[in-house]
Amino acid sequence: MTKERIYLFDTTLRDGQQTPGVDFSVEDKIAIAAMLDDFGIDYVEGGYPGANPTDTAFFESRRTTSARFVAFGMTKRAGVSASNDPGLAALIEASGDAVCLVAKSWDYHVRVALGCTNAENLESISASVKAVVAAGKEAMVDCEHFFDGYKANPEYALACARTAYDAGARWVVLCDTNGGTQPPEIRDIVAAVIAAGIPGANLGIHAHNDTGQAVANSLAAVEAGVRQIQGTLNGIGERCGNANLVAIIPTLVLKEAYNTRFEVSIDREALQGLTQLSHRFDELLNRSPDHQMPYVGASAFATKAGIHASALLKDPRTYEHVPPESVGNLRKVMVSDQGGKANFINALKLRGIVVSKDDPKLDRLIEIVKEREATGYAYEGADASFALLAYRTLGSIPSFFHVDSFRVMIERRYDANGNLKTVSEAVVKVVVDGETMMSVAEGHGPVNALDLALRKDLGKYQAEIADLELADYKVRILNGGTEAITRVLIESTDATGARWWTVGVSDNIIDASFQALMDSIVYKLLKNRGEAGRVAAE
Amino acid sequence: MTKERIYLFDTTLRDGQQTPGVDFSVEDKIAIAAMLDDFGIDYVEGGYPGANPTDTAFFESRRTTSARFVAFGMTKRAGVSASNDPGLAALIEASGDAVCLVAKSWDYHVRVALGCTNAENLESISASVKAVVAAGKEAMVDCEHFFDGYKANPEYALACARTAYDAGARWVVLCDTNGGTQPPEIRDIVAAVIAAGIPGANLGIHAHNDTGQAVANSLAAVEAGVRQIQGTLNGIGERCGNANLVAIIPTLVLKEAYNTRFEVSIDREALQGLTQLSHRFDELLNRSPDHQMPYVGASAFATKAGIHASALLKDPRTYEHVPPESVGNLRKVMVSDQGGKANFINALKLRGIVVSKDDPKLDRLIEIVKEREATGYAYEGADASFALLAYRTLGSIPSFFHVDSFRVMIERRYDANGNLKTVSEAVVKVVVDGETMMSVAEGHGPVNALDLALRKDLGKYQAEIADLELADYKVRILNGGTEAITRVLIESTDATGARWWTVGVSDNIIDASFQALMDSIVYKLLKNRGEAGRVAAE
Repeated sequence: MTKERIYLFDTTLRDGQQTPGVDFSVEDKIAIAAMLDDFGIDYVEGGYPGANPTDTAFFESRRTTSARFVAFGMTKRAGVSASNDPGLAALIEASGDAVCLVAKSWDYHVRVALGCTNAENLESISASVKAVVAAGKEAMVDCEHFFDGYKANPEYALACARTAYDAGARWVVLCDTNGGTQPPEIRDIVAAVIAAGIPGANLGIHAHNDTGQAVANSLAAVEAGVRQIQGTLNGIGERCGNANLVAIIPTLVLKEAYNTRFEVSIDREALQGLTQLSHRFDELLNRSPDHQMPYVGASAFATKAGIHASALLKDPRTYEHVPPESVGNLRKVMVSDQGGKANFINALKLRGIVVSKDDPKLDRLIEIVKEREATGYAYEGADASFALLAYRTLGSIPSFFHVDSFRVMIERRYDANGNLKTVSEAVVKVVVDGETMMSVAEGHGPVNALDLALRKDLGKYQAEIADLELADYKVRILNGGTEAITRVLIESTDATGARWWTVGVSDNIIDASFQALMDSIVYKLLKNRGEAGRVAAE
Repeated sequence: MTKERIYLFDTTLRDGQQTPGVDFSVEDKIAIAAMLDDFGIDYVEGGYPGANPTDTAFFESRRTTSARFVAFGMTKRAGVSASNDPGLAALIEASGDAVCLVAKSWDYHVRVALGCTNAENLESISASVKAVVAAGKEAMVDCEHFFDGYKANPEYALACARTAYDAGARWVVLCDTNGGTQPPEIRDIVAAVIAAGIPGANLGIHAHNDTGQAVANSLAAVEAGVRQIQGTLNGIGERCGNANLVAIIPTLVLKEAYNTRFEVSIDREALQGLTQLSHRFDELLNRSPDHQMPYVGASAFATKAGIHASALLKDPRTYEHVPPESVGNLRKVMVSDQGGKANFINALKLRGIVVSKDDPKLDRLIEIVKEREATGYAYEGADASFALLAYRTLGSIPSFFHVDSFRVMIERRYDANGNLKTVSEAVVKVVVDGETMMSVAEGHGPVNALDLALRKDLGKYQAEIADLELADYKVRILNGGTEAITRVLIESTDATGARWWTVGVSDNIIDASFQALMDSIVYKLLKNRGEAGRVAAE
């Protein structure tokens, strides 16, 4: 049986731009278009040329090589001819292979927002589509508010879709603009549209996540017959976001419910680039990735529970719905006091440490982890600190340097000009190979000052940690009050792009931070030594 | 037509505990159970008594008043009688109204994970359910891996469900443990279970979000006939999380696709507490809320400037799938905030401050709050700081005392006996009625030392704050790195049992803590003056 092709349409650069807090530069758009193009998306919608300087500049040239490059904009205004509408002209003249016209399909909106008659709106749709086709470009129409419009006035909603199709639109896209439509309604209404004479092969779905069902609504529409899905990277978009292509694509490729009947432009090999695509996009937006995102999240294939973990080791199929490598993600068995011995052995194996389950040192390690987690440590979130603890307990670690003492001072007072001022200063005394070095630094706060002083002079190791950077710093107060136990988690990164997490716990936040900072530096030094560092640990 | 009741089962405290990075203390669990109970959830699953010290302690007493309190655990082991299985005994003896037994329903798992025969597993299910019922408790069975098990061996999966039902289980819960099942499969398999003789009125659904469809799978199961939904607050849970009750509940209550046929324990009035419930839970986990979360996210009803916004002002229906106030959320139009003003007037009225909407001081207050929240303040969670800000902006506050300067020192060194020691010391210079007082104190950490020094000598006000206590102290880093902006939230209480929250924000954690500590003391002094304090402010 030949499979039916589902076309993937990315609107990250257009609807994704509506995300609160997201504002793409032309350079951002060029980079993202390239990512989507390389990954193998069918259509890349770049924005609204003529609507703002960024999009106009972005459309000065075609920004994709294999993907079809799409300009988005409105149908011509009522009362003017297509050739006399500057907005429509700008769309047609913009670089690109296709034009996606947004058209009202809810009579209420035609009246309130456009202020024209239903007939005038139909004429605008028809004339605009014909103008795009006449210019030799692929035309598609986003039927805005289609599902709400259909509920209010089915005849008119269908007339809008039908008009677009009859005028020569390659795609008629049914949009759930407000995002409140439920999957059963999607199925019924899509079926009605097909019954009205528009082939599913010419229908698309544009879903929003306002009830947390944008992915399901998109797939429900495919079930009902549509063959184009519009969505965004990581589900960004206005309000609660658009349908997340990063969740939809692997489901179409890997799930029997779909891959026996449908195929997409991304094959199983390309799919292995999905996790990287998703993370690179977050990187570009400067957001920390959602650890729980389907398929690509750092936790998507993480197991914590003891029983689950041991079964997982016997056979991954038992607790994984797809193999993590199929989407370029990794299996993660986390250490936690809920975990059994098998957890530890596997967690260690992942770090290249082979230990037999009868080794008394292993029992000692488990004991230490349980003791420490009881006092507030959380090794599941601090793999580097766990690795160091394991190396120290099962083997040994070279003592690179030693911090003899530190002092941090925070002073708030009025300066000479009578302005309130808070100064944070840290002094650290470090011993490397018997040589003592004192460093002092001022920082934005006590932890920042301590971090700067600590990394200011590590003698012969200084050059090695030059590329060490703190990516994130998290504080958790484990019990109420200012006397509380504080847990600090630090995420570090370096020039290789590697990321590692370290933890510190104390009733003193400075002490807790110091522990985590020290672990991060020592882990970096071990890491630089690669296998050597590891061998030294066994 | 009488509506069918859908029962809501919350497993935040059990499956939610599997979330990477989440580890509840007994106090956390008590607080969360109370939230769920007050909100009106039918069942609160508290954890696995006997499996770990926290859950055992949590189950020492019943933690809900109206909601049914549920203990989770495994069916008895094969080869021993129910009465001789200590694990099962612990479940039955634990406080609570119901016991949820997890049972394998995939023959493959029975072999690999349990290592017993299919028949033995059925006997364990039957005997365990009967033991729970015999103890006078409500029994329910989570059929683990039910959907994958059904695909592999439908007869056996059905036999497990059927055995649980025949033995007297009130609920047979079909679990998509690996989270990979698709909505059409959920519909078909649920239909098959009902066809096999288990009434939908006795069936539940437990969905995971591994393909981003946990909400849709739960609702698809309801469509197919199940009447209990298991989920968690904000969708926390193992890997990609469980079904998000915060998205499911409003959909069931507000969407015609469901509310014409079904009803839940939460009515439209209670639903208005949803946003607060979701945010309080994140607050307790010390996570920043997901701005794009359906219904409750800060962006869920936010519209960026443009045609949408202006149409939205003409008629909200045009771009909102439900009214934001129906879930206790707010409309946010980024051009001009129309919705805001009314909310401020109400918030102030709650604090006994009556202000007219034309009062320029009100505009000033709104302006200040917007500015500050843009820099990281969160007055939603700091009502006392908001009250002080309002008093200061709309009226005035007596200047009780003035802190001229402070100094905090943290030193880590080896003491005379060669032990590592970290000392935190704070010096504060306070001026009361022109008289300057210096206080010094040592603390567990810099914030504790500052707190102690600050409250050591407030001259004539000292006696008044004797009963002031810090109940909780929360720190959130608003952006990565140790240079990050830090937000401190402090909860205070006094002899009257009153509780109030204050906030401080700075790139220096000590500064941020100082602001919150100061607000707390000033609020306490105002509070002691009752109306007087308020009158002074108007």
